[in-house]
Amino acid sequence: MTEERRYHVDGQLLPASEASVSVEDRGFQYGDAAFETMRAYGGELFEWGSHAARLEGTCEVLALDHGLSRADLYERVHETLDANGFDDAYVKLSISRGVQPGKLDPQPEVDPTVVVYVKPLPRGGVDGEPVWDGPATLRTVSTRRVPDAAIPARAKTHNYLNGILARLELRGTDADEALMLDGSGSVAEGATSNVFAVDGDGLLTPPLSGPVLPGITRETVLDIAAEEGIPIREATVGPDALQRADELFVTNSTWEVRPVDALDGTTIGGGPVTELLARSYRQRIEDRFY
Amino acid sequence: MTEERRYHVDGQLLPASEASVSVEDRGFQYGDAAFETMRAYGGELFEWGSHAARLEGTCEVLALDHGLSRADLYERVHETLDANGFDDAYVKLSISRGVQPGKLDPQPEVDPTVVVYVKPLPRGGVDGEPVWDGPATLRTVSTRRVPDAAIPARAKTHNYLNGILARLELRGTDADEALMLDGSGSVAEGATSNVFAVDGDGLLTPPLSGPVLPGITRETVLDIAAEEGIPIREATVGPDALQRADELFVTNSTWEVRPVDALDGTTIGGGPVTELLARSYRQRIEDRFY
Repeated sequence: MTEERRYHVDGQLLPASEASVSVEDRGFQYGDAAFETMRAYGGELFEWGSHAARLEGTCEVLALDHGLSRADLYERVHETLDANGFDDAYVKLSISRGVQPGKLDPQPEVDPTVVVYVKPLPRGGVDGEPVWDGPATLRTVSTRRVPDAAIPARAKTHNYLNGILARLELRGTDADEALMLDGSGSVAEGATSNVFAVDGDGLLTPPLSGPVLPGITRETVLDIAAEEGIPIREATVGPDALQRADELFVTNSTWEVRPVDALDGTTIGGGPVTELLARSYRQRIEDRFY
Repeated sequence: MTEERRYHVDGQLLPASEASVSVEDRGFQYGDAAFETMRAYGGELFEWGSHAARLEGTCEVLALDHGLSRADLYERVHETLDANGFDDAYVKLSISRGVQPGKLDPQPEVDPTVVVYVKPLPRGGVDGEPVWDGPATLRTVSTRRVPDAAIPARAKTHNYLNGILARLELRGTDADEALMLDGSGSVAEGATSNVFAVDGDGLLTPPLSGPVLPGITRETVLDIAAEEGIPIREATVGPDALQRADELFVTNSTWEVRPVDALDGTTIGGGPVTELLARSYRQRIEDRFY
């Protein structure tokens, strides 16, 4: 294991401090790039197929025809994990439209810039410590999610200011995740997470018809819930429905299933259903990789 | 004059091919950066004070406290123009939040990345050739402008995918600028321009209360119109009002005042008012710089 982390940039493994892109790269100039955040457990990518498919969807929205196969991308990720000697890691794979002549209009001919970032991130394990430091504290922010008509939420891109503005609203509060509403005031998602409530009717989460990222962890949790016979409602609700919930949790690839201790000052917390889903999620990882 | 263009990156003048930013720069990762596009005429920046003020407004929205003075930024731009030997030029000044530890949440302590891009762009002059190749052709696209509640339009940032998605809709058409509507279907602006119509009641342009960039050229044109006694309406209208107009034009720092020959296939064109405004605009440049 080298002292300095190594990233994969445009086909080369480089020390992080030397890993750079041109100032003319459209990723820098316009955020014109697609990405995926993934987890590696035991040296293997979790749900790679789903991440690769979503990345293809993002590139389709952006009309970014990068010409790289899934196998090629997979290899670059694994070369990066290997070069760093990481088994359990956070992985970010970015594909920008690269440098192009002219100005704003993207040209069909693309010489993409592919970057793989990794950092070590221990796995929790079924009976181990959770991957997060503690439960999340949520606050509803005034920054609204970008509507699908402006930029489709299914596209995971380097245009991330919407989430950053939401997180900036948390400065000086005790909250560490922003609950974002859509233009009509209905719950959409967290700045970097999908949100789930548990009430007397089962599991509740906003539908993908709203400006909601189709989270891979979200999908896996819904799959586990179905398997466990927990009723699922994908429904458009106001933040009050979350505040009245018995349990509340957020999900993403890094946090997995993370309970929410409070929303806007109201104590909620996880509970038996959250715990069941979190444990089953970790069990899936365990079964698949160890 | 050197053969290769030189850019100003993080305090250094570098050949364009060596000008780069870290892959960890938040400008690349999240489009977390502010910018201005400006014109230099005769070696001087046009409306520098207005651009500097708008840049400060953008940084305020982003809570990006870069710590650089206007004088410092001005100097970097002029060093870049001088190093390239450009008098009449396109200038782009970008300030990103730089590299920060941690993930999405911006840290208050900022080591910004400042980039100055330049390229030669002849001036038209009062009786010279226009700066654009020909009139613009507009098409109304389905991609809607990002609402202010998601990202305020007054912030000019590297999150530019909304405009890119709009321009992508023009592929395979004869249009070269996208007319974008707000969430209610009213006219907002072009992907990279403000839009103006001339009808029997005078000059019409969408108000800044909508998701409309407060264009410096827009402001200058409104100022000239007031001086010339042309009635001005900043009004929320549908695209049909533009199609019925006698004259139509778009503005930005690069195009100055550019007539629109057609919108959605309906021929409109410039006319006497557009010509008067374009000429007065060029006269202002001439008076100030030559």
